[in-house]
Amino acid sequence: MSGNSFGRLFRVMTWGESHGPALGAVIDGCPPGIPLSEEDIQKDLERRRPGKKLTTARREPDEVRILSGVFEGVTTGTPISLVIFNKDVRSRDYEALKDVYRPGHADRTYEQKYGVRDWRGGGRSSGRETVARVAAGAVARKFLSQEGIRVFAGTVALGDVTCRVHDWEAAAENPLFCPDPEAARAMEKQLQEVRAQGDTLGGIVQVNAVGCPPGLGEPVFDKLDARLAAALMSIGAVKGVEIGAGFASACMLGSENNDTPTADGYASNNAGGVLGGISSGMDLVVRAAVKPIPSIAKEQRTVTRDGKETCLRIGGRHDIAAIPRIVPVCEAMVLITLADFMLHPFPGRRCR
Amino acid sequence: MSGNSFGRLFRVMTWGESHGPALGAVIDGCPPGIPLSEEDIQKDLERRRPGKKLTTARREPDEVRILSGVFEGVTTGTPISLVIFNKDVRSRDYEALKDVYRPGHADRTYEQKYGVRDWRGGGRSSGRETVARVAAGAVARKFLSQEGIRVFAGTVALGDVTCRVHDWEAAAENPLFCPDPEAARAMEKQLQEVRAQGDTLGGIVQVNAVGCPPGLGEPVFDKLDARLAAALMSIGAVKGVEIGAGFASACMLGSENNDTPTADGYASNNAGGVLGGISSGMDLVVRAAVKPIPSIAKEQRTVTRDGKETCLRIGGRHDIAAIPRIVPVCEAMVLITLADFMLHPFPGRRCR
Amino acid sequence: MSGNSFGRLFRVMTWGESHGPALGAVIDGCPPGIPLSEEDIQKDLERRRPGKKLTTARREPDEVRILSGVFEGVTTGTPISLVIFNKDVRSRDYEALKDVYRPGHADRTYEQKYGVRDWRGGGRSSGRETVARVAAGAVARKFLSQEGIRVFAGTVALGDVTCRVHDWEAAAENPLFCPDPEAARAMEKQLQEVRAQGDTLGGIVQVNAVGCPPGLGEPVFDKLDARLAAALMSIGAVKGVEIGAGFASACMLGSENNDTPTADGYASNNAGGVLGGISSGMDLVVRAAVKPIPSIAKEQRTVTRDGKETCLRIGGRHDIAAIPRIVPVCEAMVLITLADFMLHPFPGRRCR
Amino acid sequence: MSGNSFGRLFRVMTWGESHGPALGAVIDGCPPGIPLSEEDIQKDLERRRPGKKLTTARREPDEVRILSGVFEGVTTGTPISLVIFNKDVRSRDYEALKDVYRPGHADRTYEQKYGVRDWRGGGRSSGRETVARVAAGAVARKFLSQEGIRVFAGTVALGDVTCRVHDWEAAAENPLFCPDPEAARAMEKQLQEVRAQGDTLGGIVQVNAVGCPPGLGEPVFDKLDARLAAALMSIGAVKGVEIGAGFASACMLGSENNDTPTADGYASNNAGGVLGGISSGMDLVVRAAVKPIPSIAKEQRTVTRDGKETCLRIGGRHDIAAIPRIVPVCEAMVLITLADFMLHPFPGRRCR
Repeated sequence: MSGNSFGRLFRVMTWGESHGPALGAVIDGCPPGIPLSEEDIQKDLERRRPGKKLTTARREPDEVRILSGVFEGVTTGTPISLVIFNKDVRSRDYEALKDVYRPGHADRTYEQKYGVRDWRGGGRSSGRETVARVAAGAVARKFLSQEGIRVFAGTVALGDVTCRVHDWEAAAENPLFCPDPEAARAMEKQLQEVRAQGDTLGGIVQVNAVGCPPGLGEPVFDKLDARLAAALMSIGAVKGVEIGAGFASACMLGSENNDTPTADGYASNNAGGVLGGISSGMDLVVRAAVKPIPSIAKEQRTVTRDGKETCLRIGGRHDIAAIPRIVPVCEAMVLITLADFMLHPFPGRRCR
Repeated sequence: MSGNSFGRLFRVMTWGESHGPALGAVIDGCPPGIPLSEEDIQKDLERRRPGKKLTTARREPDEVRILSGVFEGVTTGTPISLVIFNKDVRSRDYEALKDVYRPGHADRTYEQKYGVRDWRGGGRSSGRETVARVAAGAVARKFLSQEGIRVFAGTVALGDVTCRVHDWEAAAENPLFCPDPEAARAMEKQLQEVRAQGDTLGGIVQVNAVGCPPGLGEPVFDKLDARLAAALMSIGAVKGVEIGAGFASACMLGSENNDTPTADGYASNNAGGVLGGISSGMDLVVRAAVKPIPSIAKEQRTVTRDGKETCLRIGGRHDIAAIPRIVPVCEAMVLITLADFMLHPFPGRRCR
Repeated sequence: MSGNSFGRLFRVMTWGESHGPALGAVIDGCPPGIPLSEEDIQKDLERRRPGKKLTTARREPDEVRILSGVFEGVTTGTPISLVIFNKDVRSRDYEALKDVYRPGHADRTYEQKYGVRDWRGGGRSSGRETVARVAAGAVARKFLSQEGIRVFAGTVALGDVTCRVHDWEAAAENPLFCPDPEAARAMEKQLQEVRAQGDTLGGIVQVNAVGCPPGLGEPVFDKLDARLAAALMSIGAVKGVEIGAGFASACMLGSENNDTPTADGYASNNAGGVLGGISSGMDLVVRAAVKPIPSIAKEQRTVTRDGKETCLRIGGRHDIAAIPRIVPVCEAMVLITLADFMLHPFPGRRCR
Repeated sequence: MSGNSFGRLFRVMTWGESHGPALGAVIDGCPPGIPLSEEDIQKDLERRRPGKKLTTARREPDEVRILSGVFEGVTTGTPISLVIFNKDVRSRDYEALKDVYRPGHADRTYEQKYGVRDWRGGGRSSGRETVARVAAGAVARKFLSQEGIRVFAGTVALGDVTCRVHDWEAAAENPLFCPDPEAARAMEKQLQEVRAQGDTLGGIVQVNAVGCPPGLGEPVFDKLDARLAAALMSIGAVKGVEIGAGFASACMLGSENNDTPTADGYASNNAGGVLGGISSGMDLVVRAAVKPIPSIAKEQRTVTRDGKETCLRIGGRHDIAAIPRIVPVCEAMVLITLADFMLHPFPGRRCR
């Protein structure tokens, strides 16, 4: 019952329900002396916000407040408490779902585990929880930027459209964070088609980290890639994680897959920046498979709490895909993971 | 520098180097009163042992000793210390590799992290470390079998051969643990071809767990699938992990991907037994992408410790694929993960 | 930099500074289904509040809000976020202390550790932080009361007045929580004398827990008494902890100190309810030595941030003794420790 | 059931039973590059060994083996596995105690917790477990000595004899580790008297640490003193812990207890080297109250497993006091605690 923290030294705990009074994160272990303001965090929250026509019709004004851990504009080394009060809370929308299990959601598993559940919009299992992760990720980003580490993410597949080009500057230009402008247009078209069908789409998010020093990661169980896998798989909609060549490496020969070491790095990066669980100094490259949003507009068969079969049509305003809102969330989880390892003791690192 | 433990309540720590005097595991948190003998563990170690002609020419006689935690044939609730003394330790085989970095191995990253490295067969980063995981997994299996949980694993792809049939009883019959007898034959043929080329192969391992009660897993960060992802990704050769439909779900529609709830379960299992990070009572289904063994017989380009380019041909006896030896390792990691969650408090579980 | 959590399964994190916008606690791991309201918590906060003439002149209206983890009046198993907004925040009172180190306070050590410090009233090191502990302790109390465990605390010594009687019902009747009514009067008199001298007093707090089942505590390092010692010693003013006969046992003979086992318990309780780190079913009895408040009204010698000698007279309204306000804090720490161990798996416990 | 580890970054796990095949410790997180040999550890084990006529008649030849984590004479950053095989294992001595609970021991509480117990000499609850702590402490000492930190301990009280002189060099000269040569003689005399009576003695151990940089310790729960309290209280025979003036501070005035800050430290050390949970740069001074050994030669009343009253006379060779053997154990726990905090990130520390 206590799995709401991530990280050992840069430790993030999130709390809050979709339709409760507030959500928040507490960061225990952020180094002191880092300039931090609410604006720094707000910027990242904006990237996660819906309201762009493409994927959602909801509008959640997410204003973050820093309640502790910052004094005279810099972090003090004490816990940083961030809170985002919920505003647009219409739980009546969900009253109809009180006694029925939505397909693809955690309604029944939460009830089986806890005996009770907050049925308002999924409660704790809602994607809304990720707003707290993005807020914490923004703090990690401030710390990492001082260390010369930059993390960015984008959509490399949506439905059956896959990027051929990886122009990460272009990714910032379109609402889907897609690094291939042509693919971005095809994705938008597909979103509209699927919306018209009352259905939803999945996709693949890629996160890159540039500037990681060699030496991050703790063999054998807390390997950098093992922690990244946990970080991304802890996001509700993610069903698969791979690093570097990932699943493709399963059908490569050893001679193809090995990255040739050079004096200052490696001639290729099938490893995705990690060897033996330790960062190699090459770019970190991880991808997450995102399942389609389970709340579809079509009627679905399901059962009620007392086990009776029923039909359900989920009303209200829902996203067509977790993408693009999940992109900054994946980014945040990688930021948090790296911030944690940057504080682990290792000979090669800078003192702090 | 302290990432050698896994789990919170059923906590496994492994120690030992490939060519050191011994390897071992300590299990802290195994419930008391469980019958346990060295034979119980030996059985699982045998499944991991090389010596079957297919993939390796080495022979490692792995005899486990229980040094603590068992009294009069049952566990006492105190730490169970398992040790496997190394016998066939010819470190001279490796002396040539003292000053050169093997492609695809962790030689350079360990040296970058720690400043020193045990160059004998990879030291701590060697696949040999997994013998301790399998030993610990055998203890987890004893505990879980009392709870009615059964875990088994097999090879579902090797190189470009993929299983079409999933007959798990057949998997026990062939040395590749392949659930498709026809595919097993094609895999063996491919192994021979690749061996002749001096190259190596990757593949995909699938682990199934049957009999898990609903309620395992801790939202939000310690979701069952997040922990499983970390568990599998912590194995050196694994580059990707997926659960249920996994990466395939990224190009499904919501209406296709949703598993319809029924009175006693779900009509399908795209979720792979986990919803919202909590087990649903359906079979757990996870897959790991295994990269080809980096030690190939072909000559490879690389660099020395002082940065000079060189050519390297790795001699000695090496596996052609991490499969099938990695199969019991994947199984062990799932066993350990489940044993841990079975001890977490949740209303629906049996008292212990 | 990440020591702001306590407990493994019933895990409490506190955050907040003395003169920041708010303080709070997040409880991760509280079992679901426990009735909990803001009033339940407020009751315990009142016991900690100053305002009773004896020891302080300040008045802090501490109103707690539950921001998550409770739905329809019961806990849901998700993190319980508690917040107390600071109201009476006059940081100008402290501006004079910005560049000078108060004797007996953590001003210099915080600065040495973090490089920066929040100088307003001690910031994170202030006794004010304990309001969050008491709030979390109130939640633990609700859980434990369901399990039949009752925890209470009192003042057994103040300055050189020591209790001879231990009438715990009487302790609830006087503002010092003193179980000896006659001693209570002598303590009040001593407080007035010391106040007149511009000085401060220390004392000893005793916490008893009644109704603990045998089996709580995890040998060897997480013994029940080891965790209780950490719990109490983590309170700023506490300089010593003992259990049962404690320091007195150091000059007893074995034949005097041993508690004779009987069919249903023990004939005495020198052990204080713990044998080998595991609760015995007898009452838990722990005591904490509380140092005198370092902020005295007398002038004191000290140094400034740049190392110059100076004299300091601390103005403002300050307590004469950490007692009695620290009494509910000690109680809270024992409550939290016990709640944690009640969730650990052990054969004898009730299922939840 | 998983409390057998101590520390977060320099993490020590111990395992083993009094009369099992072996005991051991695994240290996860020792920095790489530290020279370490079996002799380094053996030296500390010798200090803990009985055989000196004063307190025990047993002789345990404790030979440690390093099974991993050291390569070419230096630590590699991987887990250091230490094992001590038991030799003098005569469990028949204990067969008579199979069904009877020894007063003052953990026989019944272990059985209540686990349902089973290893009745041979206390099994896991035996003082013998501490041999593994001393071995791990020796490794911590090697690391700390590189950082200029020195830890030493001695007996400051035994029965009713208390030291008046604290000459720590003298402490190394007598078998009781007593810093007052005159008191040492009185203690020896008292030991003989008590032995003649068939009884046992308690005492007080003091541990000093010299050379700690300011900044060790993590507020608020993982304060340096809170961790030290847990460290010492986790030793079976310890019933109280205090730091600096400790319990004496409870009856001091604030003006007496405050240590006046000076440019380079403090004019006194009532705080015992810790302010606000963070080391101040002054010597660390902690004391542990040690209860008399419960195994006395006199006949005692007790009960059997099935609740019948009985009389018990414990035969065999037993110590008269946990002192002096417990002195190196207390020392080891302080060493381990400091090694852990030296690895925590803080701005003022050296890079490693």
